[in-house]
Amino acid sequence: MNFPSSLIKDAVEAISNFPGIGKKTALRLAIYLLRNKKQAHNISETIKNMVDFTTYCAHCHNISKHKLCDICNDVKRNKKTICVVEDIRDVIAIENTMQYKGHYHVLGGLISPIEGIGPTDIHIHSLMQKITNSQVEEIIFALCASMEGETTSYYIYKQLTPFQVSVTTISKGISIGNELEYTDQITLGRALLNRYAFEKTLKQ
Amino acid sequence: MNFPSSLIKDAVEAISNFPGIGKKTALRLAIYLLRNKKQAHNISETIKNMVDFTTYCAHCHNISKHKLCDICNDVKRNKKTICVVEDIRDVIAIENTMQYKGHYHVLGGLISPIEGIGPTDIHIHSLMQKITNSQVEEIIFALCASMEGETTSYYIYKQLTPFQVSVTTISKGISIGNELEYTDQITLGRALLNRYAFEKTLKQ
Repeated sequence: MNFPSSLIKDAVEAISNFPGIGKKTALRLAIYLLRNKKQAHNISETIKNMVDFTTYCAHCHNISKHKLCDICNDVKRNKKTICVVEDIRDVIAIENTMQYKGHYHVLGGLISPIEGIGPTDIHIHSLMQKITNSQVEEIIFALCASMEGETTSYYIYKQLTPFQVSVTTISKGISIGNELEYTDQITLGRALLNRYAFEKTLKQ
Repeated sequence: MNFPSSLIKDAVEAISNFPGIGKKTALRLAIYLLRNKKQAHNISETIKNMVDFTTYCAHCHNISKHKLCDICNDVKRNKKTICVVEDIRDVIAIENTMQYKGHYHVLGGLISPIEGIGPTDIHIHSLMQKITNSQVEEIIFALCASMEGETTSYYIYKQLTPFQVSVTTISKGISIGNELEYTDQITLGRALLNRYAFEKTLKQ
């Protein structure tokens, strides 16, 4: 693709580095920015500030402005429960449910032999250290229901054997509001296997 | 949506201003940038440079680094033919065909009564001035085959009546490689009406 100016070419090539954005979409976005200079400056500055001034929490690997993130710093939150997640997006998703008041541990990935990601490539070691050094009572796995998610949960579960800690996982089943006939077979099968007392739902 | 840091919130809100990008996608892109700081700086800088240093060609409204764009400055190109397009994306698309060696005129939009865009809101006046002041022989409409595109072509065509200038439009018909049965009825009908001598295709 030839561009009328090298400045546009540079911007289009940079924007097309975003995952899922090709050259044509990048060009559309670049032209949008040329027409909206104020927004373009805003995007440019906020991206620069974000990568220059954010760091990772030394305790849970969540994103943070300071050495410890707001969640780890919050004395009201229960230190004895740790929710293990893949990504900071999962922290945001769980925080938005407003159903959880414990701490987190962000793994920064999942074990995936196909992609060459082993247990030492993600933050499992620091999780074990945390459990060794402080009184953790419950570990909740909130990982996605994929082969990688299950492998990672199982690996950590095995590592936890020497510790007196309760290990749970978020429930997998049909989505709230979903019709049974449109639910995939594996999910439906799992939902049947993992059935629980109806009485439990009456208290929620 | 709550964010773990106001810096991320600002970046996500800025990125979600892009057309077609919602908050969730913006968050995914922001996390990608946090993991790829070098690319983030590159995107931030190239966007800033692009909007700060590009301007519009005084002659054809194409994007340019200088007062006149490279196409208007190129003495080898035929000044007497002007291709009228909506957007600089169309200039890029036509330039990439390498089939056109004339000048352009970028309207910067199309007449659209529904969106409140009238003839004075787009660069029609400067096109008329160009035709009055210089020896233009042919005007080629390369506007999209929509209601707005046809309205704009017709409006300009009417304005051109006093001038001795040949007015053409790029042909509309079935795409190269397309199967007839999958072509929509209107396109197929137009392609039949606008049929031309088969001999013409032998020379291409």
